[in-house]
Amino acid sequence: MTRVAAPGVCIYEVGPRDGLQNEPETVPTGAKLELVRRLAAAGLRRIEVTSFVSPRWIPQLADGEALASALPALPGVRFSALVPNEQGYARFRAAGGVEMAAVFLSASETHNRKNLNCSIAEQLERIRPVAQRARADGVALRAYVSTVCGCPYEGPVAIGAVTALVEKLRALGVGELSLGDTIGVGVPSGVRALVAAVVGVAPLASVALHLHDTYGRALANAAAGYEAGVRTFDSALGGLGGCPYAPGASGNVATEDVVDFFEKSGVATGISLDALVDTSGWLEDEVLKRPLPGRVYRAVRGARERCG
Amino acid sequence: MTRVAAPGVCIYEVGPRDGLQNEPETVPTGAKLELVRRLAAAGLRRIEVTSFVSPRWIPQLADGEALASALPALPGVRFSALVPNEQGYARFRAAGGVEMAAVFLSASETHNRKNLNCSIAEQLERIRPVAQRARADGVALRAYVSTVCGCPYEGPVAIGAVTALVEKLRALGVGELSLGDTIGVGVPSGVRALVAAVVGVAPLASVALHLHDTYGRALANAAAGYEAGVRTFDSALGGLGGCPYAPGASGNVATEDVVDFFEKSGVATGISLDALVDTSGWLEDEVLKRPLPGRVYRAVRGARERCG
Repeated sequence: MTRVAAPGVCIYEVGPRDGLQNEPETVPTGAKLELVRRLAAAGLRRIEVTSFVSPRWIPQLADGEALASALPALPGVRFSALVPNEQGYARFRAAGGVEMAAVFLSASETHNRKNLNCSIAEQLERIRPVAQRARADGVALRAYVSTVCGCPYEGPVAIGAVTALVEKLRALGVGELSLGDTIGVGVPSGVRALVAAVVGVAPLASVALHLHDTYGRALANAAAGYEAGVRTFDSALGGLGGCPYAPGASGNVATEDVVDFFEKSGVATGISLDALVDTSGWLEDEVLKRPLPGRVYRAVRGARERCG
Repeated sequence: MTRVAAPGVCIYEVGPRDGLQNEPETVPTGAKLELVRRLAAAGLRRIEVTSFVSPRWIPQLADGEALASALPALPGVRFSALVPNEQGYARFRAAGGVEMAAVFLSASETHNRKNLNCSIAEQLERIRPVAQRARADGVALRAYVSTVCGCPYEGPVAIGAVTALVEKLRALGVGELSLGDTIGVGVPSGVRALVAAVVGVAPLASVALHLHDTYGRALANAAAGYEAGVRTFDSALGGLGGCPYAPGASGNVATEDVVDFFEKSGVATGISLDALVDTSGWLEDEVLKRPLPGRVYRAVRGARERCG
């Protein structure tokens, strides 16, 4: 009897960008390059490496050009970078080395304003020329839609607000939509309903989930998303990151947690858990010098240390 | 249109027993009583208060008799205590104040031997007279079956090993079976398969899940258990506890995490999250003086502190 394998998933690593932008100290460019190299060696095929936002906003990522231009060419690995507007896109293009761009906005007005200092409609107008240029340049474009399961300022967010935004982003030419539970308040039934509504206005293959584990629900929500057909999941090595503008938000779900969860559930990721744990250990000991919060990382590291 | 509510769940609080037995220092009996009083006031209706194991094994719970005899009578609240053997059962009966007894063993030989210093078959023979006396006394009996999703020494545990044990425990007269993922390695598909197999040999209403959050999967597994029909879930306030005999095991899933997860999913628990967080805060600040790991507790406390 042939056993039919469950469809595999793609893990989209956001640690170097979404993780390191929240570190109190700036990581040297060389260490960032080493991190990216190790992530790719672990099997990650999509890695968001930096952000071309103003260095005044995020000084931790001010070396975007230097990093991008020094990236190795790795067959099968796609790098991406965040671009908030046309100026960011121009820097992204000038730097080279990064294949895909990502824009961002929120599904709730207050979070969008706190994060981007403009309304959602204004941010869509900033995304429009970026999308036009990306299309002209043949650059694949992703959009992060934050606060899809709830806003730290406004509370619940209507699914209709998310689908309306997704429609507008698709009309602008955005290829991939990363739906972000920025403050980790989602539950499986809500994720299921959200994905079902979004696939009414965008192809299932264009939808990714970006989950935070603030309330311990990230993997329950990932399971619900997988059952609803989502096959791309964002995560950050060791549980790095979080959103500085979202009170109460802790970090992204850890890449190790997502990989181990799917692999143990019979869903292939193509990623080596051991190599991830080694990389988190290196990052913790040699670079950040603070404990990383990822659950699987902490448990595996603890077991390794007890067993010598 | 009438909206049909999802069936509610019963949360079985194990913190005073399974949590405090792992604390490095012994909590004074008065503080334990205050903890139990606060848990009941928060809405918990089933609370495991202590263990009548040898004080040489677990000195933290050596005050079992003093605690049990000082418990308040609270309408609608059922207290339970762990009893490893006939001597423990005799102490439990002599102390009074506690209505329900709980025995324990493992689904894997090596864990059973490390934890209980005997084989599974020998432990079943120790449980036999306890079950006989409980039946004669009209005392409801629960059994904890540990390592149902995997053993820290033996690795994967066959579902058949669990169902065989459940059959024997039911034949001895055990009323409730708490299936324990002692090291947190379960995944939703495994939990679903396990529950489906167990309900072939025991009524669904007799099955509880005792989940640990070592790898961040406790709530995903709770969701799978709920979908499979389980309505009783064990948890410990603030994520207290763990198993000292299971390398790599972190604590029980936090009561706050389970309550918030179910309530936000539309499943009633009858428990006040605010009162739980207040109780964890009191326990952390006034009694244990170390940070509790529960996710929801930490997030809510952090948000309260930031908002003044």
